[in-house]
Amino acid sequence: MENAIEFIMQRRSIRKFTEQMVEEEKIELLLKAAMAAPTAMNLQPWEFVVIRDLEILKQLRKALTYGKIAAPLAIVVCGNLSALKRPLAERFWVQDCSAATQNILLAATSLGLGSVWCGVHPITMYKRVISELLVLPEHVHPLNVIYIGYPAETKEARTQFRTDRVHYDTFK
Amino acid sequence: MENAIEFIMQRRSIRKFTEQMVEEEKIELLLKAAMAAPTAMNLQPWEFVVIRDLEILKQLRKALTYGKIAAPLAIVVCGNLSALKRPLAERFWVQDCSAATQNILLAATSLGLGSVWCGVHPITMYKRVISELLVLPEHVHPLNVIYIGYPAETKEARTQFRTDRVHYDTFK
Repeated sequence: MENAIEFIMQRRSIRKFTEQMVEEEKIELLLKAAMAAPTAMNLQPWEFVVIRDLEILKQLRKALTYGKIAAPLAIVVCGNLSALKRPLAERFWVQDCSAATQNILLAATSLGLGSVWCGVHPITMYKRVISELLVLPEHVHPLNVIYIGYPAETKEARTQFRTDRVHYDTFK
Repeated sequence: MENAIEFIMQRRSIRKFTEQMVEEEKIELLLKAAMAAPTAMNLQPWEFVVIRDLEILKQLRKALTYGKIAAPLAIVVCGNLSALKRPLAERFWVQDCSAATQNILLAATSLGLGSVWCGVHPITMYKRVISELLVLPEHVHPLNVIYIGYPAETKEARTQFRTDRVHYDTFK
């Protein structure tokens, strides 16, 4: 089954990477995948910071309790709240940017890359440190850090499907 | 390019559907895709309500200002906050369930189905009406309504890639 569902099951959180750099063209494909995600009212409230600078990567590792991962590349997905004039839309930036993040993870898998999503928002301490490190303007909020690279570990494809999480017509 | 990136670009918000029902096996594949998404601390804080009852579908349409869509199937993705013992994890359910939602949309595309994500959380009025309609327990929060079916409209594959949303190493 060479289709999207295969890549969806193959995507696993990879935390060990080789030192091989991710090619420019692959980085662009990841970003094209990200910006193909749906957003509330099509407001595309996102910004992407692509990090390859070794010192900044080191500082990221230092900042994140659960993100001390040596990867040659990180993408920080951010919400740009200044793009959101309507109060309703502002409430959806986390969902919009999460959909974009999931697209990056799946695109990475299909390109032979590994990736792991490390949460930042809404943890105030993480947000503050990352914002300072990346010199984010006040209206730009970091949602996460995605580490990406060529995998140095392999994991089986899987779903964590459970029938008790499925309900029909109402919650029974 | 028969890979995940193709499906990611092909996924468009489809709002017109034929009356053809979505097969059981396809619904199960959508749910398997959903539950293959990553979650913070692997807590899988989700519940899925699969709706085919015509009266409930009608009530959903009535409740949602931007979701008055005639589809033979809806999946309501919910966060189960009782599964989250740790305060840190509780703050990630929206992101976790958004990743699962994006997986459903992409899996639908690869199965020849159309879909559209209609936001519910954090709009209090929508949450209240949907919770009553689906008889959700208090600790279960509806994130969205995904309408799904065989498409009666076609849209071109696309990305909304913009270079001005991409920054290198810091926000410049």
